[in-house]
Parts: sequence; structure tokens; C-alpha cells
Amino acid sequence: MPSGRSGRTSPVSSEFGLIRLLKAQVAKPDREVFMGIGDDSAILKTSSSVWTVITTDLLAEGIHFDPARSSFEDIGYRAAVANLSDIAAMGGTPRFMLVALAIPQTCSMRKIQRLYRGMMQAGNPYRVSLVGGDTSASQRGLFLSITLTGIVKPGQALLRSGARIGDRLYVTGTLGDSRAGLELLTNSRRKGFSAMKPAQSRWLVARHHRPSARIAEGRWLVKQGLATAAIDVSDGLSGDVRHLCEESGVGVEIVAASLPLSRACRAYAAAHHVDPQHLALQGGEDYELLFTVPSAKQSRFERLAASTTFRFTCIGSITHKRSGLRMRTDTGTTKILPITSYEHFRGPLR
Amino acid sequence: MPSGRSGRTSPVSSEFGLIRLLKAQVAKPDREVFMGIGDDSAILKTSSSVWTVITTDLLAEGIHFDPARSSFEDIGYRAAVANLSDIAAMGGTPRFMLVALAIPQTCSMRKIQRLYRGMMQAGNPYRVSLVGGDTSASQRGLFLSITLTGIVKPGQALLRSGARIGDRLYVTGTLGDSRAGLELLTNSRRKGFSAMKPAQSRWLVARHHRPSARIAEGRWLVKQGLATAAIDVSDGLSGDVRHLCEESGVGVEIVAASLPLSRACRAYAAAHHVDPQHLALQGGEDYELLFTVPSAKQSRFERLAASTTFRFTCIGSITHKRSGLRMRTDTGTTKILPITSYEHFRGPLR
Repeated sequence: MPSGRSGRTSPVSSEFGLIRLLKAQVAKPDREVFMGIGDDSAILKTSSSVWTVITTDLLAEGIHFDPARSSFEDIGYRAAVANLSDIAAMGGTPRFMLVALAIPQTCSMRKIQRLYRGMMQAGNPYRVSLVGGDTSASQRGLFLSITLTGIVKPGQALLRSGARIGDRLYVTGTLGDSRAGLELLTNSRRKGFSAMKPAQSRWLVARHHRPSARIAEGRWLVKQGLATAAIDVSDGLSGDVRHLCEESGVGVEIVAASLPLSRACRAYAAAHHVDPQHLALQGGEDYELLFTVPSAKQSRFERLAASTTFRFTCIGSITHKRSGLRMRTDTGTTKILPITSYEHFRGPLR
Repeated sequence: MPSGRSGRTSPVSSEFGLIRLLKAQVAKPDREVFMGIGDDSAILKTSSSVWTVITTDLLAEGIHFDPARSSFEDIGYRAAVANLSDIAAMGGTPRFMLVALAIPQTCSMRKIQRLYRGMMQAGNPYRVSLVGGDTSASQRGLFLSITLTGIVKPGQALLRSGARIGDRLYVTGTLGDSRAGLELLTNSRRKGFSAMKPAQSRWLVARHHRPSARIAEGRWLVKQGLATAAIDVSDGLSGDVRHLCEESGVGVEIVAASLPLSRACRAYAAAHHVDPQHLALQGGEDYELLFTVPSAKQSRFERLAASTTFRFTCIGSITHKRSGLRMRTDTGTTKILPITSYEHFRGPLR
């Protein structure tokens, strides 16, 4: 599910509080539900040969996107990727999309067309079919809710809960680019902007506007059968690794020096005197996959991975729960993994 | 899908314009999609033994509901019924629900719990499982998007497009109650309020707050195999019969005197000097089913229906498309079926 980096706190600010409440009060045992509330997508045992994964996200203007900073194509694209990424995190193949919109008076038909165009641009590589939806008026602001279904072979989906002590922690791609791109968009006159190559700035902004859903990587992981758990990095690495550890009942040690950073992200950090590791840990909307592999299978995994075009980076190991969530710094000391300053008000039903 | 009786017009005001645009530009042939955009729910050929029906709705505060007039339980209940009704209109059995919320700062955890309680109260009789969702902050107003899946036997779903010339037009239950209930809530000091029995007022308000989803009726229709087309009455009879006729390429003649009106609705109309037929034709959110039966099968249908507890009323016949949409008045003359004064901005993707 997508990240809302600008998500505000709210009286209903406890994401996990609401999850627990719903699990206890609302969700009931259902023999066709393999995974209900609490993962990136729900998993439904729809038939003996294929299971359905299904996810929904709601994006709000001013919270998740700002039409002053992003085109409607980009808003649609990013919204679709947020959902595609939830399917990717299960190792699923996306299939059908439904789109519900609440549209303010100020929004023209042309903008709505662009929004759909962006969504379809994100879904077309996977032959996702738009099969339905709803539209409504909105008194203020655009609201966009996407539901995406996918398929996975019975019993093969990657869950958040499978990580075991000793497992190696991997991540796809690079981290922090989307956040750097967002900062460039937000503070385009910021000192240091000119110190970067324009191509690098453009690349970071594109990583924010047009992130990649790691569908192919997720399917490959399922096919190899070596990963024990997975989650997508939507709220930021430090937040999402926490979700994975809580669901698996484990701790983690992340090696700061191993965090995969793009050259553009490093250049941005240098030009703006920010810590690139901070961008990688706290920056949301990367939509990379975070997953675990048993240490005994690490060499086999890395040999297989080397024959692909995918970028996987080992960034740490799973530890005992009582060790908590820690990070080994560049100087060799370990410290508690920094927590984002507030719990983003979003995503509680994952 | 639900009705927004207070739906405002918008620059993107053409519901059918957007449907056509999406059908042409976005929806692509997919051999697993039996029905995509354009009916109450989409129908997906998920397996050879069972097909999936899926629908989504977005309800906006100030457009579809007003917390000053309705409890959060009632808002949740009605939102769930709107979706259940879309499954009912296909003759489906509801299964799984996902809920996405955008929540303003002013909304407490307790209110959100009530909202979920209402949704589950509507879904529990059908053993609907809540399997996931999303929550977000909202800068202003509560937005609620529900996705509901259901199942139907391959090839058995009721579509909007199956009505043929000569078919009899039926409706379940009574029409106009929800509108009368809403008017009572909106204008509670309105002259004539006291002229009604309090129990009747309460009943009408309950019909607005807690409408019935006609799941059992829809499944029964599918089982009997006599209905040729169906739609749920969410936007009002005159609007929804139009959708059915457009999708089927036919006209209709409705007999005004046959419109099923509850005693309470008649009492409301008398006390407030409004035309009860107008309430039945224009009042939305009835969530009754409108369906067609071939004239040759009418007597068989009515014989079978007599053995049930369901209320079905024949309200007219399907005519040639060139005859348009007409109504036979109480005096025996026919006139063009009144159109609502504006096209509600909602529901374009059904």
C-alpha cells in the first residue's frame, strides 16, 4: 500500500491500534480466507488451482499528492504503483483494477482522463484490466481509491510473518530516491539544486513520480521458493522493516553501510548536506521489496540472483525479538533503529 | 451502487460520457472478463466452477451522508448495503469486503468503530468477511470506499442488457420510502410531521438509514432462471430503468398506478402534500431490484413467486426502443417518463 509521507496525525492515529481492533472485533474466521487483515494484500482461497490476492488503497489530495507538484498522469501512475506494489510484495500477478473517485468541482474531465491514463500506463505492462469503479462529487479535494486483484499459486504467497532468526534481509533496487525527488519538487529553489547535474535531478523526480512496482522480482522470488517473508517499502524502510519484524515476531540488525543508494541520491544528499542513509531509512514511497532468505540458502540465492537483471542487496540479518530493531553504523557501533517521528496515519488494514 | 440524492453537478458531469470514454480508451478485451465497466458489478471468470462479481463504491461526507443526520453505525450500514445491492442485482452471493477510509482530524476512534460496526451489521447476515482495506488522513470530510466481492455460477449472473420487447418489468419491495425518510430527517420541523403516526415516521427513517439489500431475491431470481435482466434501484426508479433500457436497447412503459408504495410513504405524501408517485420515481437509495421476465413466463413466475415471502410487483412492460421511456398515468394517458432535473454525478463505472 502507498505511503503518505505528509500523512498527518489524527485522533485515530494508531495504525496498529485500529488493526488490532478490527482483527479482534470485526474479522471472523472464514475458511476461504488464507490471509485477512494484516499483510500487504489479503489472500483468498478462491479455487484449488489459484488463489486471489486483493488490496485497496485510498489516496487523498493534500495528503498523498498535490496537483500543484504532480501531473494528473503522474498521480494516477503512482496510485496504481502503490497497489501493484502490494501485489508484488505477495509474489502475485496483478489482474483486475477498480477505481473509485471523489471529484471536486474544480477538476475537469480532461484531468480525470489524464488520471486514468497514468493508472493504465502503470498497469499495462502487466496487462491489468480496468473492470469497474465509481465516481462521486467531492466538496473539497480529489480522493482516489484503487482496488487491485491478483493471482498466486495456492500456498506460494510471500507473507510478512515468515522471517526467522538468522535469515538474511534483502531489498530490491535503491532506497531514498523518491524522497529526494519529492524534496526537489517541494523546494525547487533550495540551495544546492544547481550543484547537481540536471539529469540526476530529473531522474530523482521521475523516481518519485513514476516508481517501479517490483512485480517481476516478487514473482521470481515465489518461483525460486527461497524467500521466507516479504513486504513492500512504502512507508520507509525503518517503518516497514518494523511491520515485517512484528508480524514475524523477530528483531533485525541493519547494516547502515550496506543500504543501496543511487548515485543521484548520493549527489542530492551531498549537495543538500543531508545524510543519504537517513533518506534511505525514512524516505517513503520507494516501492522496493524487502524480503528475507535463510542464511543456509544465501549462497544459492545469490548465485541464482546473479543470473537475473534484478538488483538485490543484503542489508542485514534477522535477530531474536528481544534484541529489538537495531542498526550497525559506519563506525561499527550498533544503535536502535530510528523510528519516524510520528506514526503516519495510514495503511492500518494491510 | 449507492445513490447520491444530493449529488452535485460537476465539470465532469456526464456519467455516461465517462463510461463511454473509459470503455473506448481504457478497457481492453480480456478473456477472463465476462462483464467489465457498465453493469452493477464486474463479472470475472475466475474458475470453471465459479465466477467472481466485484463492485466498489465511494461515499463522500456532505454528498452521500451527513453525520449530523445519521449515526456512524447507520452511515456504515447504508454504505455496505449500497455494495451488497450491487451484488444482489447480479444475483450473486456476497463474500469479501475491503474498506478504505479517509478520516478527518475531527473524527474519533469511537466513531470509526461505529462505522465498522454498521458495515458488519449489514454484512453479517450474509457472512461477509472483512479482509482488508486502508486508512488515510483527510484534510476535510470523511470518505468511505467499500469494495465487495461475491460469487455467481458461470453464466448465471443477471445483467442490465438482457431485457427484450414484451418482457414484464418487476420491482421488489416498495419505492420512495428512503426518500420520504430522508425528507423527514432533513425537515423534521416541517409542517405535517405531526400529522403522521410516529411509528410510520420512524419506519420511513429506518428505511433510509437501514435499507435492505435484496440478496435473497436476487439469488432466487437466478435460481428460477426466469429473469432476463436486472438492476438495483439506487439512483431512483426513473434513472435506473433508463440504465436498464439503454443497456438492453429497448423502451419501457411504466404504469404509474402500479408503483408499489408503502402505507407509511402514502401517509407521508398525504401529510406533506407531495405526490407519492414522484417519491417512487425520483427517490433514490431504495436498493430494490428492478428486473424483467418474458411475458410467456409471467404466469409461471408469479406462481413460483407466490410461494415465497418476497414482494414482487409488476410495474410495466418493455417496449420498442423507438417508443422511448413512457409512463401510463392514472387517467390512462401516456407521457414521457420524467427525467431527474440533473444527471447525478456518480456511478459512471457501473
